[in-house]
Amino acid sequence: MASPAAKPSAKPAAELSISALAGIPLVQPGDNVADLILQGLAASGFALRRGDIVVVAQKIVSKAERRVVDLREVTPSARAQTVAAEVDKDPRLVELILRESTEVVRHRKNVLVVAHRSGIVLANAGIDASNVSADEHRVLLLPEDCNRSCREIRARLAKDTGIEAGVLMIDSLGRAWRNGTVGVALGAAGLPTLLDLRGTPDLFGRELRSTEVGIADEIAAAASMLMGQAGEGTPVVLLRGLTLPVADGSADDLIRPREIDLFR
Amino acid sequence: MASPAAKPSAKPAAELSISALAGIPLVQPGDNVADLILQGLAASGFALRRGDIVVVAQKIVSKAERRVVDLREVTPSARAQTVAAEVDKDPRLVELILRESTEVVRHRKNVLVVAHRSGIVLANAGIDASNVSADEHRVLLLPEDCNRSCREIRARLAKDTGIEAGVLMIDSLGRAWRNGTVGVALGAAGLPTLLDLRGTPDLFGRELRSTEVGIADEIAAAASMLMGQAGEGTPVVLLRGLTLPVADGSADDLIRPREIDLFR
Repeated sequence: MASPAAKPSAKPAAELSISALAGIPLVQPGDNVADLILQGLAASGFALRRGDIVVVAQKIVSKAERRVVDLREVTPSARAQTVAAEVDKDPRLVELILRESTEVVRHRKNVLVVAHRSGIVLANAGIDASNVSADEHRVLLLPEDCNRSCREIRARLAKDTGIEAGVLMIDSLGRAWRNGTVGVALGAAGLPTLLDLRGTPDLFGRELRSTEVGIADEIAAAASMLMGQAGEGTPVVLLRGLTLPVADGSADDLIRPREIDLFR
Repeated sequence: MASPAAKPSAKPAAELSISALAGIPLVQPGDNVADLILQGLAASGFALRRGDIVVVAQKIVSKAERRVVDLREVTPSARAQTVAAEVDKDPRLVELILRESTEVVRHRKNVLVVAHRSGIVLANAGIDASNVSADEHRVLLLPEDCNRSCREIRARLAKDTGIEAGVLMIDSLGRAWRNGTVGVALGAAGLPTLLDLRGTPDLFGRELRSTEVGIADEIAAAASMLMGQAGEGTPVVLLRGLTLPVADGSADDLIRPREIDLFR
């Protein structure tokens, strides 16, 4: 059978585009991330539109916010030394991980999963040594407050363009039960992060019993595909065409409260 | 400051489009899913291209493969009755969940997380009662072999169009630590599911230590945004523009082996 020919009137039911912005320079401490985003938008031929979502790699926000730490300036505590021996990591790095965390969730050789100050459960408190600098001693912490950083970027973009875009900050995280990292929302401003479909009828008119969609994590995963993890240097992605209810969610909404989490 | 004007020569560093296909009818038992996809492609104005990834909702594959079960024909075992009382679910549904599983990972009131036969850890063995039919007694199991179903769809699409597209079957699943479901790959054919970036240099030429990306789950999450969870009726999504290495992965690659999983 031949493929049915496309009709001239044919169109998809819904469509979105995801674009990695060109022209974002290597970020320097003190840089204004919103300015870099505007440069990237211009270099890529985009003017911001209502409904656009700008997705930013955590790493460039951390760099701009001077969250680099030189391990040579860190003195590990006794506890950090004990944990470091158990997980076989640099005691100074473990010291930073513990300082950034409220709880060690799991640890064993090469693995240190913690609850970050923000509540997010992730390996190594999100501290990263790749793509930080050519200096082996420097590591990068998460921003002090990822949601606040997103709100600041959003406000600056709105001031400069008149458009109140959604802003999401993401990183690639591992997860329970499954191999491979996926993009996850660490901070958000100007978009819903969790969609509550409870009360929405299904195809047959029955009410869905309990479905909340982690939409900001889905956006994060989608954007992450174009950011790459290695040397691509495309830390900002524009997502256009997604129809979402107007809401100003926080990435905190995506964190399951400790007391009802069966996997901590 | 005014937004920098877009240059005529400007273009993004990379771009992908995600389209929910129009024109997919309500699926009936025995339907050929590849034929439905071809109908949707035509109705949406697409001809398949090399590199395209077709993402299909698990639910329509299960329906087409006659995986509907009438709860009135299920006799719960003693164990199913015990578990059902503990989780406060229908004992007949729990019987089906246990039959489809190799292990109960966590359970408490309203929660029954298991390892499905396939190895995937998920709630209720992926058995769903929404969007199945107007009949309250009918529930839908996952396909017998989600990767095989994808291979069959891929082969049929190739036969009919000459294009060897990637095919992914997805569902929305809950996860540890975080609220909200996200799209996850249950089956795959004709695309890599896990990208191994180990050995790739970072921006500063240092080798990344250990990064595997769960790319098929990122595609699943991206496509899931356009499928919706409720009555939208857009169970097939076309993803176009993603540059991936040629590989024929399996969704099994994404399952962390039980013996190294710290969260079971």
